[in-house]
Amino acid sequence: MHKSTPRRAQESHRPKVVVVGGGFGGVRVAKALARTDVEVTLVDRTNHHLFQPLLYQVATGILPPGLIAPALRRVVRKERNTRTVLAEVHDIDLERKVVRAATPTAQEIELPYDYLVVAGGATHAYFGHQQWSQFAPGMKTIEDARTLRSHILGAYELAELATDDTERAAYLTFVVVGAGPTGVEIAGQLAELARHVLPEDYRSIDTRRAKIVLLDAGPSVLPPFAPKLQRYTRRRLEAMGVEVRLNTAATDTDAESIAVRSSAGQERIVARTKIWAAGVQASPLAAMLAKATGTPTDRAGRLAVGPDCSLPGADGVYAIGDMVTTADRLPGVAQVAMQQGTYVGKRIADRVKGDTSTPTPFRYVDKGSMATIGARQAVAQVRGVTITGYLAYLLWRYVHVMFLVGWGNRLGTLYDWLRSLRHARNRGHRLIGLTGAQAVEEMPQAA
Amino acid sequence: MHKSTPRRAQESHRPKVVVVGGGFGGVRVAKALARTDVEVTLVDRTNHHLFQPLLYQVATGILPPGLIAPALRRVVRKERNTRTVLAEVHDIDLERKVVRAATPTAQEIELPYDYLVVAGGATHAYFGHQQWSQFAPGMKTIEDARTLRSHILGAYELAELATDDTERAAYLTFVVVGAGPTGVEIAGQLAELARHVLPEDYRSIDTRRAKIVLLDAGPSVLPPFAPKLQRYTRRRLEAMGVEVRLNTAATDTDAESIAVRSSAGQERIVARTKIWAAGVQASPLAAMLAKATGTPTDRAGRLAVGPDCSLPGADGVYAIGDMVTTADRLPGVAQVAMQQGTYVGKRIADRVKGDTSTPTPFRYVDKGSMATIGARQAVAQVRGVTITGYLAYLLWRYVHVMFLVGWGNRLGTLYDWLRSLRHARNRGHRLIGLTGAQAVEEMPQAA
Repeated sequence: MHKSTPRRAQESHRPKVVVVGGGFGGVRVAKALARTDVEVTLVDRTNHHLFQPLLYQVATGILPPGLIAPALRRVVRKERNTRTVLAEVHDIDLERKVVRAATPTAQEIELPYDYLVVAGGATHAYFGHQQWSQFAPGMKTIEDARTLRSHILGAYELAELATDDTERAAYLTFVVVGAGPTGVEIAGQLAELARHVLPEDYRSIDTRRAKIVLLDAGPSVLPPFAPKLQRYTRRRLEAMGVEVRLNTAATDTDAESIAVRSSAGQERIVARTKIWAAGVQASPLAAMLAKATGTPTDRAGRLAVGPDCSLPGADGVYAIGDMVTTADRLPGVAQVAMQQGTYVGKRIADRVKGDTSTPTPFRYVDKGSMATIGARQAVAQVRGVTITGYLAYLLWRYVHVMFLVGWGNRLGTLYDWLRSLRHARNRGHRLIGLTGAQAVEEMPQAA
Repeated sequence: MHKSTPRRAQESHRPKVVVVGGGFGGVRVAKALARTDVEVTLVDRTNHHLFQPLLYQVATGILPPGLIAPALRRVVRKERNTRTVLAEVHDIDLERKVVRAATPTAQEIELPYDYLVVAGGATHAYFGHQQWSQFAPGMKTIEDARTLRSHILGAYELAELATDDTERAAYLTFVVVGAGPTGVEIAGQLAELARHVLPEDYRSIDTRRAKIVLLDAGPSVLPPFAPKLQRYTRRRLEAMGVEVRLNTAATDTDAESIAVRSSAGQERIVARTKIWAAGVQASPLAAMLAKATGTPTDRAGRLAVGPDCSLPGADGVYAIGDMVTTADRLPGVAQVAMQQGTYVGKRIADRVKGDTSTPTPFRYVDKGSMATIGARQAVAQVRGVTITGYLAYLLWRYVHVMFLVGWGNRLGTLYDWLRSLRHARNRGHRLIGLTGAQAVEEMPQAA
């Protein structure tokens, strides 16, 4: 049933490039190598290429998961020298130049390489309190977003079933930890849900009275943005009914509440739904490579790679994206990972062609940052120019749609956005998808 | 946080109608009672109203789950006298006139009624071999369809990773049990996936060689259809590469194979993916009501209700849809459940207004049957007229889109269909959505 056994045998003399991680960085490496005479293996533990910046829209029922997570094979179908492998990498042998991974049926496979690019990404950090993750889940994978959607919509269902006011209030309180772009976006959408989408669907509760709290340990929302945009965002959030609490750190959480500390002292907020959008913790692959080569990592576990994204002390090995840190401390955003991916792909192509010169260091071109606040509101800064309001929202929409993979997903996303904005402010994808008995395990629970 | 406590208190003197099940039948009861002075409680164990006839499209990656499963609250948002309750009914006390249910947090609730409509539906039947369900899952819920999607797409991923030809062939063999409309539709879509959608995404396997087998113990496909349409459907399926095996019964199944018996004898087909689309088994609520009232059930566990869908021996209690059987042996299709729902809703409205006359028996108006075979092919029969091919497909598409709830879902579905037909024959919703370790439990496995 092999399609091309003879050609394969011939191909095996070409240099092998293994790319670990099918996110923004990894896919760009494969694309940059499309016309180079190498064999690329793109290994990922999921079958899809996730557009993380729109995950919060899945969590709040605007977009279906499929539109922001096309099949990884489909994304690289035109890169005929790239094959994708669904497996989880657990070991990298730099001596033998082999990546070891486990397939979904727990079968061990070895992927030999001549060049290796590790793009394992990062997740949120619970700052040493990993046990909080069960009560305040993060949002980094499609499964995370689906679980959150069940939590959020389930909380309203349970609020309506609640028999006393205290319990009802606990279900109708939503706390978002971390006021970076993800935290701001999810808090804004929670406010939209409560005030505009759900009210007419409920009979015995007034969803508009739901309390949405956005916490941050730092002094401002959207820390990397210009102060003017930070102030604008905070005002907009407050106008939408979000309670913004800055200089306030989470100190503990359980099924029913979250404890916070600020200059006003300690407090326990009773809330069944907590969403974690704070901190950064690099993929464990960073620590593995650090240990094997003696390369330092920063506090978030990110590898300190060289100016050409190479791993010091391991020839032909590169690391890119959210799991690395560079001398110029680039932000952990998709643009950096993509540009690094393209850079490393080209660098490998040059080396395959015999280039042994010292490479020009990687240089990040900042194309601007943006974040949405709620429906029709956003902030953006592009090379010192700041934009706010509806115009920024249109810009945000344009940029995000264009970065989705494939016209089918772009149009589909535009359609769902139009629907959420205009058509009775509906959300098309409100599936909890759990039957009674199962839901008990997934939903915010009584202790 | 109550929206309207005073009004509630006043309402409590109005007759209470409890509807169990938010499917085609249950929703129609609520709609028929919208202008009657009653309080309707619609209780379901999921938060959505599922359009089952399109589930197979979720299982094969054409539609996202949300489009065919709008929030139940949204579906009845204009029926201001209907409230929805997310809970699983486990007991009906006909003496005290109370329905008992468990909420997602395992809280017990009691729903008193003056009138009760039970519309619990049916599932596939494993004919006493319930253990087969783990190896040959059915397709009745959104979760079922998502699991099947993971099985089907995961099988190709694992086939590409397979190290020997026997294992690869096992992953590339798909057996569908039951050649009713659901079985025919899923087999047709499996053929489309293998032959038109996936080939260019795979490098080392030829997905077009996947083997799709459609089994039925009976002598024809689509048993309720005209013989002419049965023959047409079989020819079309075979032209698409589906192996149709009639008069062939499944006798056993495990993780790796399915055993079948026909006049040619016993055989074991090695196949990792088996899909069960055979038989009917009424909701356990039917047996519960049968036991409490001494009402007979048929072989499929369906309650023999009266000509007005009432439960003999229990005043004010009705049962409708796939969980009942009537003297004229109506087919288990959406149309019957919907018409019964409207009929019973109107009947209750009459009784509330004081009508004590003997009701006109329920009479089913057959608006025709249809089934799709593959992309652009369908069969339909409407009052003795039979239609085949592209015209039948267009008719099928029109009817199914119009029956979806809400224009948002109708347009969204049309969009995804256009996409699957025209735009590079893509499937927009191919998420397996499992990380490596989790996938082991969900995917077709080695023993």
